Amino acid sequence: MNRRISSISIHSPQPPTRRSSYATSVSSRRNGNIPRRLSSLSTAEHGEALDPETTAADETVAEEIAEIKRYEDFTTIDWVQDAARENQRRKARRVERAGFFEREGRLGWRRKAWEAYDAGQGWIVVTLIGIAIGMNAAFLNIVTEWLSDVKLGYCTTAFYLNESFCCWGAESGCPEWHRWSSFWPLNYFLYICFAGLLAFCSAHLVKSYAPYAAGSGISEIKCIIAGFVMKGFLGFWTLLIKTLAMPLSIASGLSVGKEGPSVHYAVCTGNVISRLFDKYRRNAAKTREILSACAAAGVAVAFGSPIGGVLFSLEEMSNYFPLKTMWRSYYCCLVATAVLAAMNPFRTGQLVMFTVRYDRSWHFFELPFYILLGVFGGLYGAFVMKWHLRMQAFRKRYLSQYPVLETTILAVATAILCYPNMFLRIDMTESMEILFLECEGGHDYDELCDKENRWIVVFTLFCATLLRTLLVILSYGCKVPAGIFVPSMAIGASFGRMVGILVQALYEAFPDAAFFAACEPDVPCITPGTYAFLGAGAALSGIMHITVSVVVILFELTGALTYILPSMIVVGVTKAVADRCGKGGIADRMIWFNGFPFLDNKEEHTFGVPVSTTMTSKPTTLPAQGLTIRDVERILAETKYQGFPVVDDPHTKILLGYIGRTELRYALERAKRQQMVGANARCFFAPHEGPRTAMTPSATMPSVSFDDMGDTAGSTSVDFSKFVDPTPLAVHPQLPLETVMELFKKLGPRVILVEYHGRLTGLVTVKDCLKYQFQAEAHENLKDNSAGQDKLWGVIRQVAEWTGRKVGTYSGGRLRLGEGMSPPPSAGLEGSGRTEDERASDGGDVELEDRRHVPR
Amino acid sequence: MNRRISSISIHSPQPPTRRSSYATSVSSRRNGNIPRRLSSLSTAEHGEALDPETTAADETVAEEIAEIKRYEDFTTIDWVQDAARENQRRKARRVERAGFFEREGRLGWRRKAWEAYDAGQGWIVVTLIGIAIGMNAAFLNIVTEWLSDVKLGYCTTAFYLNESFCCWGAESGCPEWHRWSSFWPLNYFLYICFAGLLAFCSAHLVKSYAPYAAGSGISEIKCIIAGFVMKGFLGFWTLLIKTLAMPLSIASGLSVGKEGPSVHYAVCTGNVISRLFDKYRRNAAKTREILSACAAAGVAVAFGSPIGGVLFSLEEMSNYFPLKTMWRSYYCCLVATAVLAAMNPFRTGQLVMFTVRYDRSWHFFELPFYILLGVFGGLYGAFVMKWHLRMQAFRKRYLSQYPVLETTILAVATAILCYPNMFLRIDMTESMEILFLECEGGHDYDELCDKENRWIVVFTLFCATLLRTLLVILSYGCKVPAGIFVPSMAIGASFGRMVGILVQALYEAFPDAAFFAACEPDVPCITPGTYAFLGAGAALSGIMHITVSVVVILFELTGALTYILPSMIVVGVTKAVADRCGKGGIADRMIWFNGFPFLDNKEEHTFGVPVSTTMTSKPTTLPAQGLTIRDVERILAETKYQGFPVVDDPHTKILLGYIGRTELRYALERAKRQQMVGANARCFFAPHEGPRTAMTPSATMPSVSFDDMGDTAGSTSVDFSKFVDPTPLAVHPQLPLETVMELFKKLGPRVILVEYHGRLTGLVTVKDCLKYQFQAEAHENLKDNSAGQDKLWGVIRQVAEWTGRKVGTYSGGRLRLGEGMSPPPSAGLEGSGRTEDERASDGGDVELEDRRHVPR
Repeated sequence: MNRRISSISIHSPQPPTRRSSYATSVSSRRNGNIPRRLSSLSTAEHGEALDPETTAADETVAEEIAEIKRYEDFTTIDWVQDAARENQRRKARRVERAGFFEREGRLGWRRKAWEAYDAGQGWIVVTLIGIAIGMNAAFLNIVTEWLSDVKLGYCTTAFYLNESFCCWGAESGCPEWHRWSSFWPLNYFLYICFAGLLAFCSAHLVKSYAPYAAGSGISEIKCIIAGFVMKGFLGFWTLLIKTLAMPLSIASGLSVGKEGPSVHYAVCTGNVISRLFDKYRRNAAKTREILSACAAAGVAVAFGSPIGGVLFSLEEMSNYFPLKTMWRSYYCCLVATAVLAAMNPFRTGQLVMFTVRYDRSWHFFELPFYILLGVFGGLYGAFVMKWHLRMQAFRKRYLSQYPVLETTILAVATAILCYPNMFLRIDMTESMEILFLECEGGHDYDELCDKENRWIVVFTLFCATLLRTLLVILSYGCKVPAGIFVPSMAIGASFGRMVGILVQALYEAFPDAAFFAACEPDVPCITPGTYAFLGAGAALSGIMHITVSVVVILFELTGALTYILPSMIVVGVTKAVADRCGKGGIADRMIWFNGFPFLDNKEEHTFGVPVSTTMTSKPTTLPAQGLTIRDVERILAETKYQGFPVVDDPHTKILLGYIGRTELRYALERAKRQQMVGANARCFFAPHEGPRTAMTPSATMPSVSFDDMGDTAGSTSVDFSKFVDPTPLAVHPQLPLETVMELFKKLGPRVILVEYHGRLTGLVTVKDCLKYQFQAEAHENLKDNSAGQDKLWGVIRQVAEWTGRKVGTYSGGRLRLGEGMSPPPSAGLEGSGRTEDERASDGGDVELEDRRHVPR
Repeated sequence: MNRRISSISIHSPQPPTRRSSYATSVSSRRNGNIPRRLSSLSTAEHGEALDPETTAADETVAEEIAEIKRYEDFTTIDWVQDAARENQRRKARRVERAGFFEREGRLGWRRKAWEAYDAGQGWIVVTLIGIAIGMNAAFLNIVTEWLSDVKLGYCTTAFYLNESFCCWGAESGCPEWHRWSSFWPLNYFLYICFAGLLAFCSAHLVKSYAPYAAGSGISEIKCIIAGFVMKGFLGFWTLLIKTLAMPLSIASGLSVGKEGPSVHYAVCTGNVISRLFDKYRRNAAKTREILSACAAAGVAVAFGSPIGGVLFSLEEMSNYFPLKTMWRSYYCCLVATAVLAAMNPFRTGQLVMFTVRYDRSWHFFELPFYILLGVFGGLYGAFVMKWHLRMQAFRKRYLSQYPVLETTILAVATAILCYPNMFLRIDMTESMEILFLECEGGHDYDELCDKENRWIVVFTLFCATLLRTLLVILSYGCKVPAGIFVPSMAIGASFGRMVGILVQALYEAFPDAAFFAACEPDVPCITPGTYAFLGAGAALSGIMHITVSVVVILFELTGALTYILPSMIVVGVTKAVADRCGKGGIADRMIWFNGFPFLDNKEEHTFGVPVSTTMTSKPTTLPAQGLTIRDVERILAETKYQGFPVVDDPHTKILLGYIGRTELRYALERAKRQQMVGANARCFFAPHEGPRTAMTPSATMPSVSFDDMGDTAGSTSVDFSKFVDPTPLAVHPQLPLETVMELFKKLGPRVILVEYHGRLTGLVTVKDCLKYQFQAEAHENLKDNSAGQDKLWGVIRQVAEWTGRKVGTYSGGRLRLGEGMSPPPSAGLEGSGRTEDERASDGGDVELEDRRHVPR
């Protein structure tokens, strides 16, 4: 915040002309208080007339502090400070521009060009990002397609073509596309080998180069957009590795999707590109805007649904989504989708594989079945979330040291289980495409539409649903780029298709029943594809707890206005069911599980207690005067708090301001470097208090500089007042906790002080609120089931050791699998994507350990 | 807020058992301060264990005050208070439920039924509202269609059928449908007569029964959703009259649309229905949720676009749109649309008339023309807004006394001008339907697609565009239900179709040009209908400054995924152009023009001043003790402030709390009624201050009751402490004004106090902020042009007098038109829909007169 760092001139020998507006107040301060007050009042009146040079110097300090802050990992951004700083910067720019006028005249072309660039910078950045995301998406689509098909066979005309490009124009297979062999067990074996190999490569890449590239990233990005700092999570390496490892992991056949990772690489792209521009390097709020837009574009390219992307970003990703962000998201989605459309990766004009068109409408009698699909979606979501969290707890505790091995084994197991099932064998998007289609019009994959085959198909679909659900629970969260959107949709689609086929059978058995009276005689009445389609929507909605965006995504996938009401009904039912089963989608649950300091906007709480019950009632404070450099250093060393309230006196505790740890340390080091202060030099944190007055204190220049006190090197006092925020948010101790949480959610300060009649009585952070919330709602959570986990781990270890022994025996000791798989006592996840919570210590004072351990 | 009114027991002789938790603190307070502190701390610890009886008594008082507040017109709701009160209520409910357990056992069926009802109440209400809105929309569609066609002719089979129902199945006309006569001047005359008659009826209904039913209502509803109270604006009469007058005004041919009024009647429906339910009568926040949902449903039924409705509500109507509101809106739209679909008012399965399907795709070379359409949209919006505001200023000043006459004359003039133009003669939605259609497939209205006719059609469309723009400027804002959505879309459609035809002509002139290389040889390459469609979107976006919702609405109108990219591009260009021309759509401009206390979320400001520059620095305060009843009554009589800060002493000004005017007056009257206090009785506003302590003061029971002081009637002191909010939001005087405005926008308090080291230094309201903002940005506004208006008025008056004389002469004095049309000095609008700003005196202290007068 620039208010707070308004001028850095601690004993630096600047010529006095450089500090015109300060000089008045500074020189007058030794003459007593009244002149100072007068001068500061006049400064307030002429607050606009800042000296540009001084502003520039301030700016430098502000930049330096911002630079330091950027490298502070696992802290949260103070949005109030950020906004105030941005305002200061705008004002400075206005002053600078005024200076420009004088030098260049009103119509200087340089000014015009510069202004146009400055105004358009945001749109330029978004355009670049959109293009990059669109191109990346096209690349990923092509590579994934090819890698998926390579598991099954190869193209004789050109090895780099996938099946559909190899057999372009031909319906279902062509001579140019060869299976690996004509002997199916060999094919099966090769399929398994490829799956293992691809998964191994993917996991190895992730482990070696960018641990943050693992998983879907959605919950982390939610926190980052809300202001949590995770260094490197959106960096270039993560982007690169995520882009490379994603096709590998999807092609390996693991039940993971590309949509979550797609959001992650899109946001990485946005972060990497926006960092190249000055405006975004400095300003967290503007970066957040861009990141929200990127998240939208990520979904837009993944589903070919630009509006769906915007709504997803609104509904799921961003806890603060003003209209400006919406417009940026909209534009970013537009560009990304347009680029993807221009690249045309599937050569069909479709943006995603499972786009579908329905010719026929639906009938009102189908409603009960739609409701059934909705119920399925809700239950599916609740079931998967519950077991996935348990799986994650288990993984964290026992498997964290073997990410590559785990992934490879999982991929091999998936391949073994999936190959026999015709819907699981192929790529998930492909299978969704098949399941969505109407039977009429010559689309018939593996006799899916054949009436003779009906019960076999139903059974296969049923198996596919169950198996895939199991695999999703196991696979989502393993250490490769892995999303849960598409797997969920695939599960919903197979279930839906099954229901659809059953309804069709019912209709064909009783074509004249009153229930089916709405059917026209010669036209196919039931379209099982639409059930698959709605089922996919239901499952997606159930797992993510999103509604409107799912409907829009479905709508943009079909383009059929006809099916908007059914999708709304299905998704509505899903939401109702899902809400009965617990709150929050999987992303929210993961945030909770990982203990990120994230206040969920969606939840409402009634605690009925004042803030004083949850505040830290005796925070470490700094008295305005009386501390020496040594004392301050000791306080910094002994505490881990992110900042300290400044009070006039440790006993009266009249609140004067708040100083951040970063600022304090920076100021301390700067003072030591530039002034060579000794350890006994006295520290001042606030201007000397004038006679108490009900009038406004100095307005634009909150704290008066002390820096003229000693002009000799090795001075005996240091003034930190310029680094103190004189106006931290402070509330009354009796204010309800809910209101304080609203303040945190809506304004986003890092800390709120509690003040009673001017005296500091406490300090409250987001973590304090979350801690209280956790305690108040603990009864709703699961109990510890680590005993069961221990047993499971024992079995796994025995199997692994036995396998290891056998392999060792048969290979003559040359191969060794796993080495003494014993659970590490503290289950540290060095270098893995889930480490963040281990180190997450925002505020330093509260560790939300308890929250993390609950779902075990 | 219930915290603040926690127990009403001012000297009422209740048995002591009723006040268990109070009794402790009350009885101990005379024994000294330490016991009190202890007891209050223990109360804090056991804060949950409220005595249900006391809570019920509190509840009664809270209800009474809420009831009074509901009838306070033109004030704003304090959302912080509202939320706190709702929390208190929930807690009370929890206690009550616990009591229920004891009486009925855990499984009492009554409890279960009651709980299920309580939980589902919200959804029940929304369902009812959705059904009502859907049915109303269907009714309005049918009536409007019929009334519009009655101007042109009648059905011989049944008089109540409109042309399309009369000629069901026949293409373009049938013998059953008769024109009024075969002689066209007579038809012309009858057309004009009907127009005048319908407009007269409509205006008369509005003037006589529900002045608030005039206009579109969108800007008012925006303010109401933000918390502004306008009594009766959403009442039953407004609903009834709006529903009756809307078909009349649209059928009269005035260039007004039904979409704005549709939002208004939807919101009225929601308000009327939700008032029947207990939960909503009490809680402003929940009502706001419902109103947002209704606004969405209003747009949904008007455009047949459920998702578009949700997004419209999000983008335009609501300044606070949490996900819960989104889900409610979503559901409400779903129900309303489904009901409308089931009613099927057009018998074509379409929800709105201008739904359209395109078979053909677009080409990249069409982009420049799309951009042209976008630019048109932006310029159209800016132009119409500018002139409409001038027209409104003129109307307010001179025409406010003649709403019926004005409307009738306007309708007659419109009819005279429009009849000769084939696109203006028919209903706007019908003309849009015609303009949107592809030429192929047998749709050819009046040879629109005929190549021979091309230049005539282009000329007609050009005239239609210009004329309609002029008429929209004049008509929108006249005293009948009148929206601007559809007229704007109609203008955009006629312009777009014109461009489309020109492009088609260009293509046909140079079919082999490289520019048109993408065209396939034998298929029609250019579809002028799509230009009309995109033009409509551009104009809508230009006038309302909404983007995403327009794209979704367009998308839902066509259902064509193909045209989503063009619509996004067109709307994007429109937004860019519109933003260059000024900020805010027409609804925001009207809010500004009318001086409503509304802080716009969309705008960003950089003032760079602290809040102390704009605050009221010497607010009227109430000392905690020392005032007599007479003093308080004098203060209430002399000031118009909405509330008073309570300080311990007028000199030290230590802030103790804040008491609302309503609460104070209520408490005063209650005290006088129940205790018969004399005018000299002393008033206490705060509990006696214990020794200052850094510890938490009493937590759940903020203020300790004084009520046991005197048990005799006619007591000499009154305690108001329970009506004092002990924790008003207070900020530091140096806090930047932007942050304070964020607080207002995001938390929605009515007032923020300014406190410096515990002392009150000022008070700031939304109006103070708006006032400062207005001054800071005054240079951006228009200058006064009332001289020009005076001249115009002079001309109009002369014409009117001359006409009046002539009519009087020819009718032998039996007819008299207008009586001495002289401008009223203060232009009061008795009983008209625009009066609200005249009386708008939120906070009472600041009148934003200046803002209102600027655009003149």
